[in-house]
Amino acid sequence: MSKLDDIVSLCKRRGFVFPGSDVYGGFAGTWDFGPLGVILKKKIMDSWWSFFVEGRDDMYGVDAAILMNPKTWVASGHTATFADPLVECKECKSRFRADKIADGINESVSSEEFWDLHVKCPVCGKENWGPIRKFNMMFLTHVGAVLPEDTGELAEKSIAYLRPETAQGIFTNFKNVVDTFYPSLPFGLAQQGKAFRNEISPRDFILRDRECSQMEIEYFVKPADWEENFEKMRELFHEFLEKEMGLDASLIHELEVPAEDRAHYSKRTIDFMFDYPNGCEELMGLAYRTDFDLSNIARESGKSMEYRDKITGEVFVPHVIEPSIGVERLFLAVLSNAYIEDEVNGEKRTVLKLPENLAPYRFCVSPLLKNKSELVGKAREVYVLLKEKYGNVTWDDSGNIGKRYRKQDEIGTPKCVVIDFDTLEDKSVTVRDRDTTSQVRVKIEEL
Amino acid sequence: MSKLDDIVSLCKRRGFVFPGSDVYGGFAGTWDFGPLGVILKKKIMDSWWSFFVEGRDDMYGVDAAILMNPKTWVASGHTATFADPLVECKECKSRFRADKIADGINESVSSEEFWDLHVKCPVCGKENWGPIRKFNMMFLTHVGAVLPEDTGELAEKSIAYLRPETAQGIFTNFKNVVDTFYPSLPFGLAQQGKAFRNEISPRDFILRDRECSQMEIEYFVKPADWEENFEKMRELFHEFLEKEMGLDASLIHELEVPAEDRAHYSKRTIDFMFDYPNGCEELMGLAYRTDFDLSNIARESGKSMEYRDKITGEVFVPHVIEPSIGVERLFLAVLSNAYIEDEVNGEKRTVLKLPENLAPYRFCVSPLLKNKSELVGKAREVYVLLKEKYGNVTWDDSGNIGKRYRKQDEIGTPKCVVIDFDTLEDKSVTVRDRDTTSQVRVKIEEL
Repeated sequence: MSKLDDIVSLCKRRGFVFPGSDVYGGFAGTWDFGPLGVILKKKIMDSWWSFFVEGRDDMYGVDAAILMNPKTWVASGHTATFADPLVECKECKSRFRADKIADGINESVSSEEFWDLHVKCPVCGKENWGPIRKFNMMFLTHVGAVLPEDTGELAEKSIAYLRPETAQGIFTNFKNVVDTFYPSLPFGLAQQGKAFRNEISPRDFILRDRECSQMEIEYFVKPADWEENFEKMRELFHEFLEKEMGLDASLIHELEVPAEDRAHYSKRTIDFMFDYPNGCEELMGLAYRTDFDLSNIARESGKSMEYRDKITGEVFVPHVIEPSIGVERLFLAVLSNAYIEDEVNGEKRTVLKLPENLAPYRFCVSPLLKNKSELVGKAREVYVLLKEKYGNVTWDDSGNIGKRYRKQDEIGTPKCVVIDFDTLEDKSVTVRDRDTTSQVRVKIEEL
Repeated sequence: MSKLDDIVSLCKRRGFVFPGSDVYGGFAGTWDFGPLGVILKKKIMDSWWSFFVEGRDDMYGVDAAILMNPKTWVASGHTATFADPLVECKECKSRFRADKIADGINESVSSEEFWDLHVKCPVCGKENWGPIRKFNMMFLTHVGAVLPEDTGELAEKSIAYLRPETAQGIFTNFKNVVDTFYPSLPFGLAQQGKAFRNEISPRDFILRDRECSQMEIEYFVKPADWEENFEKMRELFHEFLEKEMGLDASLIHELEVPAEDRAHYSKRTIDFMFDYPNGCEELMGLAYRTDFDLSNIARESGKSMEYRDKITGEVFVPHVIEPSIGVERLFLAVLSNAYIEDEVNGEKRTVLKLPENLAPYRFCVSPLLKNKSELVGKAREVYVLLKEKYGNVTWDDSGNIGKRYRKQDEIGTPKCVVIDFDTLEDKSVTVRDRDTTSQVRVKIEEL
């Protein structure tokens, strides 16, 4: 088993992440968060929100609908260009992303270029390819009183898409926020929410799924100030990833994306790459989007997206710095950063060394023996006390104490508090540390 | 203007809720939360989560994907029955929900029954109706490498729906949670997330939208214990709505839903109705769903949904009590409960008397005059102090002090803290109360 397989297995075994629709044999590219996964995901998202929105005076939150007016995707370019090159094997009818089954080509490969490579079908082994077709990755649906048998203009006019990114839900609200709050530049609009991409081949656990949560900021600046603000965001995100998420700095690598690989809207992009168990992959992107989006919205909507500077009176379309991060990518980075296998007393141990602010539970409280009512009673007292004080505290009286430690290690609980017979005498408990496995006696009131 | 219009207007003017895709002329049935709406929505959702999940030992969170295996909706009955009666005017081609343009019929009206009523078309005034057709309210999409021109089995097999309720994302995870956490009955699985319904006629602001957030608990009980647990949930939700959400108890009415109006899966349902500005409407539902869902899942998946009692060893399919609440419905209840128009010194005033735990900001700090740097400097000091202590604190130095009070009243800020020249001498500030408009002097360190 690879380390990624180990993490996937731990995620299912301990209730962090289950395959989506698992009871029905799954549903490709979807994942469900279980009880511990929900807690960790919420802590990650709340930490981002607190760091970038609540803790600052220059940030405003928005929460836009997933279903948006289709003009949004014309203006953003997604209708025309958000597509992968799809190729079909004429023999077995299997379909593939051309650039994933051949080396040395990119997303804009032509049919002729692909045919010239003489690729064999990964399913049937033959070489008989149809033309490359552009496969738009937006999920399409119909809105309103349209029946499945409807065609033509009626069907056409009812088309809507599941948003492929949260960013446009921010840009379309730029004018309303400016007209309501009169913010001074630079300021940011921040959003957390779902986005959907119809990946031809979802893979790599939650790294490339069809439904993900994004956390995006569009930070509006004066055109001349973009470099300074780009640097500011770059530093802030390093701080967030290392201090709040506890990621090891040596696992994060900046990739200066060369012009030919950048999205069409970007004049500069740095991808923050992370050493995942299966290799180095994008964790987040920091892009200078210029005035691309606001100008497109102005053209498509006929409404001005200009901003009037409060001091100089200057009128212009603000430029944008966009730090964009996928929650699932960050979730997996946090898990794989914390996932350690070591040895304790000659036995293999799996432990999640999660930072204290992210661990689902800060303490686990348990009675040494489950069938001694005086121990259980005292342990419940301590549990209630700690739960009132810290909130995220769990109770465990299953199996023997060694098994409980293993389980709490696997879910990343920093401290196990054990109530034994001495506790009844000296009002102190054993506190066992996840990382060192050392045990100390602590007075209950000092916990 | 009706009171609902006033609230819609305040929501837009103050940045609580904007029409979805507003810059493109909107998108029917969708709404975007602005900066203050995001804060209020998050407080409502976090308060529910803390009350029903974090604060209890018998609740487990889940967060399932929106896109689910289509078998889910066969098992739940949505594919067959989640439909409204659609009727088309043959003259002008307008389409309507039959039961919304005629009195005295319900969702299961037949074509003949409808025709016999001799309804005139609300658009063209003629009477020339097509047959009643069942319009399924689930949004349909296609998943995987399927092109728009694909038809037949390929298209058929790729069909997926946007979930019309979050409940099935809970039921499908029942087995995984039981196998992972071994909970004792009764226990609940709780989820917050989006659900989508293709309403033929979205209306009433955020009450009947096409995309909403739900907060649902499926509380699993022994079959014989359902009544006791139904009562427990009923009381808990009254407590939550009144104490945590601050809703006036006299505005909440229980409606015992008669058998013929209940959903097909329910043996008892109480709708909690709320006196919204436009009339009494459903705020939430409390339903006894029996073992309907788990048994359907067992049949459709071929997997046992039986539970083995840890003490008696008895094996059975648990029954379910489901409290289900829509975030937007609760959001509007909180707003309309808090919305007051009164008179202060002979002038009309609009005020949101939000409870302190839900108000977007607890304090607003401002200098009496904006152009006096010593006042501004001192006010910033107080602002930083309060922000560190309470988090949700805002700054306002726009307009004159009277205008600031009006604005803070409209967004529900309980206390305005004003720094004036006396502050520089006596280190005390004016604290003005939202509800009484009274002002008192308070020492800065006592804030």
